[in-house]
Amino acid sequence: MKAIGIDIGGMSIKIGLCEDGKIISRRKVITTKDYGEAIDKTCDAILSILNELGITENDIAGIGIGCPGTVTGSQGKIDFLPNLGWKDVYIADSIKKRIDTKIVVSNDANVAALGENIYGVAKKYDSSVMLTLGTGVGGGIIIDRKLYEGGESKGAELGHLTLILGGEQCGCGRKGCIEAYASATALMRQTREEMLLNKDSLMWKIVDGDIEKVDGKLAFDCEKAGDKSAKKVVDNYVTYLSEAIMNMCNIFRPQAIVLGGGVSAQGDNLVKRVKAYCEKFNYGYRGAPVPEILCATLGNDAGIIGASALVIE
Amino acid sequence: MKAIGIDIGGMSIKIGLCEDGKIISRRKVITTKDYGEAIDKTCDAILSILNELGITENDIAGIGIGCPGTVTGSQGKIDFLPNLGWKDVYIADSIKKRIDTKIVVSNDANVAALGENIYGVAKKYDSSVMLTLGTGVGGGIIIDRKLYEGGESKGAELGHLTLILGGEQCGCGRKGCIEAYASATALMRQTREEMLLNKDSLMWKIVDGDIEKVDGKLAFDCEKAGDKSAKKVVDNYVTYLSEAIMNMCNIFRPQAIVLGGGVSAQGDNLVKRVKAYCEKFNYGYRGAPVPEILCATLGNDAGIIGASALVIE
Repeated sequence: MKAIGIDIGGMSIKIGLCEDGKIISRRKVITTKDYGEAIDKTCDAILSILNELGITENDIAGIGIGCPGTVTGSQGKIDFLPNLGWKDVYIADSIKKRIDTKIVVSNDANVAALGENIYGVAKKYDSSVMLTLGTGVGGGIIIDRKLYEGGESKGAELGHLTLILGGEQCGCGRKGCIEAYASATALMRQTREEMLLNKDSLMWKIVDGDIEKVDGKLAFDCEKAGDKSAKKVVDNYVTYLSEAIMNMCNIFRPQAIVLGGGVSAQGDNLVKRVKAYCEKFNYGYRGAPVPEILCATLGNDAGIIGASALVIE
Repeated sequence: MKAIGIDIGGMSIKIGLCEDGKIISRRKVITTKDYGEAIDKTCDAILSILNELGITENDIAGIGIGCPGTVTGSQGKIDFLPNLGWKDVYIADSIKKRIDTKIVVSNDANVAALGENIYGVAKKYDSSVMLTLGTGVGGGIIIDRKLYEGGESKGAELGHLTLILGGEQCGCGRKGCIEAYASATALMRQTREEMLLNKDSLMWKIVDGDIEKVDGKLAFDCEKAGDKSAKKVVDNYVTYLSEAIMNMCNIFRPQAIVLGGGVSAQGDNLVKRVKAYCEKFNYGYRGAPVPEILCATLGNDAGIIGASALVIE
């Protein structure tokens, strides 16, 4: 079944017509803070795709929309989309005025989790939990192949569970959340903190002495080259992430944990270490299987493909 | 619809025939480590109830069983019941040999959560999450009036999410779990630690100088009498519990949080303080409702009544 997936980002709105998790035709609209203009251009793009393929809205299952920020799914509403400053916009209704089909809205981490479960790396599994390790830590929960968003689409904020009460300040206002320790942003902070303690670290050479050049790869790269400070950073990061994953196991005991976002590009190296940690501290799970730990595979298209899955039963 | 609920405890097995959440007739069997004997006596008790009421197994929806420890629901199996030393016993099959009806097994915290949602304090709400604050911290999750146990009935271990990574040793083998800070056992430890720091505390007088007499009420009682040390203990405990509850909100955003177990006997005093804390640190939840926080009302019968709900659709 064909469906439109829309991935709203801070820089652009990406639109794709998908069939069975493959993008058949796509468009991109440069994002604007003017909501009306953005919706108009998005509808133009959808209609242009349908026109190109010689089909109408009656030939698609509907339109799925993923966006950063908070939504109220039952009302097809974006509550707040910080990057664009959109607040309380009824995006499903807005699009429906021009294209009358089923429209479902969810947040980007939920959408990515659904995409990976239905079409991506977790498609073998009925239940999976995704953590996106990027600027923040997003969460997505799939139970029996269905997206679970929590009440009023306000749950599944898995980056905002406590890891260290009273610890690092989190963007959500609380202290010590998983996001404040396991996001790419947190990894970069941890890298810089360690560099300031160890001026001899190889990490300083790689960034030409400019701490502003630190990224989420640096510690992983320098650890491979034998740098002890880098190893310390990575070891700690693995502990934070693994403890977060063990929490997910204790809540959901999913068949698979899917890691996405920038840090997941570390692939096997990261997965092996997290698995080793989880197996070592597995005492509390006696008799319970350790879930598969996998890295997301849909990449940049996860937003479009996952969104299309929102309207496919 | 009538159903049998069975509550397996360390001291006794309580059996009740329930109708609409009320116990019509009940029996008690003294618990024995001999599994075969325990099952025989339990079946005798069930048949005696049915006989008393002049009905057969065809007149009941089935038999629900709640027990401490771990179960595999899909196999009607108790994996491990530490108090009695039962391991890998197929209790549903064992009972079915004498009483052929639908039999469902779950753990005691799940069962309590279901009972409170269907028949107890949370019956107004489609979704609720229960934390039992006793020897440990048990968790139960109700989504759309249905029990969610996680994969292989091995999830919903909400007491075993991290509150302080690397903190107090938890019985599950990890360190810093919610259970290690918010259980009645933890509250007693926190009370004793504070008493050792403050020999002038009223708490010493109440226990006649015997620290072994500390219980989960002591700090709450002495705080009311104006004792500063006791207030410190209670304030800290409220922080631990509130942070745990905020985590539950971020995962599930349930309509209600239900507190059970010994500590929940503090009732309104505890609820008010937890609510105040959650509202104060509510930043991350803007636009999301703060769930009701309630204390369990089914009391000692929660195990029987909740278990009966396992077999009622």
